[in-house]
Amino acid sequence: MTRTAAFEGLTVLDLGQIYNAPYAGFLMANAGARVIKVESLIGETLRSRGKSGSAAYAFTMLNQNKQSITIDLKTDKGKALFIDLVKQSDVVLENFSPGTMEKLGLSAETLRDVNPRLIYAAGSGYGQSGPQRDYLAMDITVQAMSGIMSATGIEGDPPLKSGVALCDFLGGVHLYGAITTALFRRERTGVGATIDIAMQDAVFPVLATVLGAYYSGGKKVPPRTGNKHSALSVTPYDVYPTQDGYVSIICIRNGHWNSLLKAMDREDLLEDERFNTMKARAEEMDAVEDLVGTWTGARKKQKVLELLQAHAVPCAIVRNVEEVLDDEQMHYRGMLRRIEHPELGEIVLPASPICFSGEERIESELPPDLGQHNDLVFGEMLGLGEDELEKLRGEGVIS
Amino acid sequence: MTRTAAFEGLTVLDLGQIYNAPYAGFLMANAGARVIKVESLIGETLRSRGKSGSAAYAFTMLNQNKQSITIDLKTDKGKALFIDLVKQSDVVLENFSPGTMEKLGLSAETLRDVNPRLIYAAGSGYGQSGPQRDYLAMDITVQAMSGIMSATGIEGDPPLKSGVALCDFLGGVHLYGAITTALFRRERTGVGATIDIAMQDAVFPVLATVLGAYYSGGKKVPPRTGNKHSALSVTPYDVYPTQDGYVSIICIRNGHWNSLLKAMDREDLLEDERFNTMKARAEEMDAVEDLVGTWTGARKKQKVLELLQAHAVPCAIVRNVEEVLDDEQMHYRGMLRRIEHPELGEIVLPASPICFSGEERIESELPPDLGQHNDLVFGEMLGLGEDELEKLRGEGVIS
Repeated sequence: MTRTAAFEGLTVLDLGQIYNAPYAGFLMANAGARVIKVESLIGETLRSRGKSGSAAYAFTMLNQNKQSITIDLKTDKGKALFIDLVKQSDVVLENFSPGTMEKLGLSAETLRDVNPRLIYAAGSGYGQSGPQRDYLAMDITVQAMSGIMSATGIEGDPPLKSGVALCDFLGGVHLYGAITTALFRRERTGVGATIDIAMQDAVFPVLATVLGAYYSGGKKVPPRTGNKHSALSVTPYDVYPTQDGYVSIICIRNGHWNSLLKAMDREDLLEDERFNTMKARAEEMDAVEDLVGTWTGARKKQKVLELLQAHAVPCAIVRNVEEVLDDEQMHYRGMLRRIEHPELGEIVLPASPICFSGEERIESELPPDLGQHNDLVFGEMLGLGEDELEKLRGEGVIS
Repeated sequence: MTRTAAFEGLTVLDLGQIYNAPYAGFLMANAGARVIKVESLIGETLRSRGKSGSAAYAFTMLNQNKQSITIDLKTDKGKALFIDLVKQSDVVLENFSPGTMEKLGLSAETLRDVNPRLIYAAGSGYGQSGPQRDYLAMDITVQAMSGIMSATGIEGDPPLKSGVALCDFLGGVHLYGAITTALFRRERTGVGATIDIAMQDAVFPVLATVLGAYYSGGKKVPPRTGNKHSALSVTPYDVYPTQDGYVSIICIRNGHWNSLLKAMDREDLLEDERFNTMKARAEEMDAVEDLVGTWTGARKKQKVLELLQAHAVPCAIVRNVEEVLDDEQMHYRGMLRRIEHPELGEIVLPASPICFSGEERIESELPPDLGQHNDLVFGEMLGLGEDELEKLRGEGVIS
């Protein structure tokens, strides 16, 4: 098998921190690029939160297959080193607050002047331009600003965040998509690009169904609908209790509903006019929900799943993260792999979701220690010898 | 200004339906590719739900700047037409249930035999291989299976879905990233690729913080934490009431906390040992939450936002979708644009979140009518004249 190594030979300088830009770097590394994590002398924020605390897993996940160097970019010598690396690199990746790189004298313009083929890729909460560019952004604040929270939770209760970091990651994967788009164009034109991906932009499309309800309802903000359809126009569409947990069931076609009735042994309702169209069911939502919930409530979740899958009714078990980490399917496909972590013990790490059929995935290498590749990278790329590196260390430019 | 048209000259045959693959096609179209939506004679699922119902907005959003042709792929002549188009195309994009294209005799292998440079890109819930490949998948079932629901909502209450279609869109943008990766590689090697993106794989990384809590807590499944930090190790980190809505505030550094105290006029607490480290605050979470919530509760949300931004404390207003549609920042940046829709009236549509700085965005063209480009595409690409098209229409091969 060939390896999925589309970007072999490309070098990425990854100044990313926490989740957003590091995820783009992770995807680049797993597609074969050499990704050099450029960190301050104390390490990026996520690393600095510790090797065994609650940030350790995410740091490990996102920085697989990268190299690490340290540079104090506030020093003149540090800037010069960085610029020398930029001359030989294909991508610079960062998600500092907008303006940070300018203040360091390392703006996209400056760096692209030095290397016109450079792809300069910046991720941020709201973008590098505009009246709100300096709003402080993290996943939870973007969830608030973007409408996600207002659409999550129960009607009448306060808005709720999605329990997962979707803004950071949607931002990160759009950043990757933008970089790959620019790299393709560069193959054809020789020209680099400046990329400006805002998390707020990247998450807007996920509102699709909620916006559908807003517009079809005469421009009225729809209420939160818990686990139900955003426009309350589809049922069954909910999470239902079972004897040992929850399942979700969704019937978006009449065929699904008919099959569900068969699975529930309620063929007597097939012709019932209260239920036999999508519209009729939506009007009888409580009765439908009750019918389905009572049936699931008397069964075990695995039984419900098997029966409904056999009847081609969309159904799933609500799984907790431990069950997800053990998922047979993702392990079978090589998406998840068990790895020994020096502090956390055996952990399950994801590969890249981007992989080509019939091609081998890149194996997982644990994240580098801070500055682990200083000698290698500064030696290989800049020809610096031991004495010069020692001097730079002494001056606090690298570590 | 140059236009962001990286993929000008490339042709994509977009068999996508609903959200997942159509979003990848949307991103391709907005990066300059010619995206031809290939639909059955009744149109893809989302289109068939109607021009003014709750699906109309999403259909409009996702199918901007595409062309539409119809082919009955179950007929021999339809298959032959499709294969002739594939010979001249760069990408085939689909998100049918796994196995559907094989059953039609149009598998990735068949099509790549016909055109070895082809990128065949398939999106699905769980992937094209493995024991669960045939599980029926939609956004809500993947939210259940992937652990997202188990991490969303309030401890003790049932699990909750995120109110937005994050699985469909995370799948779709990874599909785009995979296509662009394969296109880059094709420039260098001449070889196509078969892409297999599973939504379940694509959403796994968003569990980062929850998995961090799981591993750092000794492999114990963490409880749902509402709007609080998944590991309950950071506070303030929550949604707080104001006089006229909600704000989210998050202090991930001591500096944020100190600034918040100043903004709240509570400098008397700066040295207070109950609060002056992250760890101490986490242990006094109720007291911290109370302090902040009481302060916000006596103010208007806009005032809180302005004051905290001025003090560099991450803060955001929880906005509803109407406020998001009016967002000054996204309109300023050209991410959102007002467009007249024939049935819905004036609507706000997103451009692609992927755009290069200093380059013009592609203007929005509303989605094509079903089969609107049959004459154009079959004429231009296959050289079919009016008589031949009339004959195909008569035989029910196209419409």
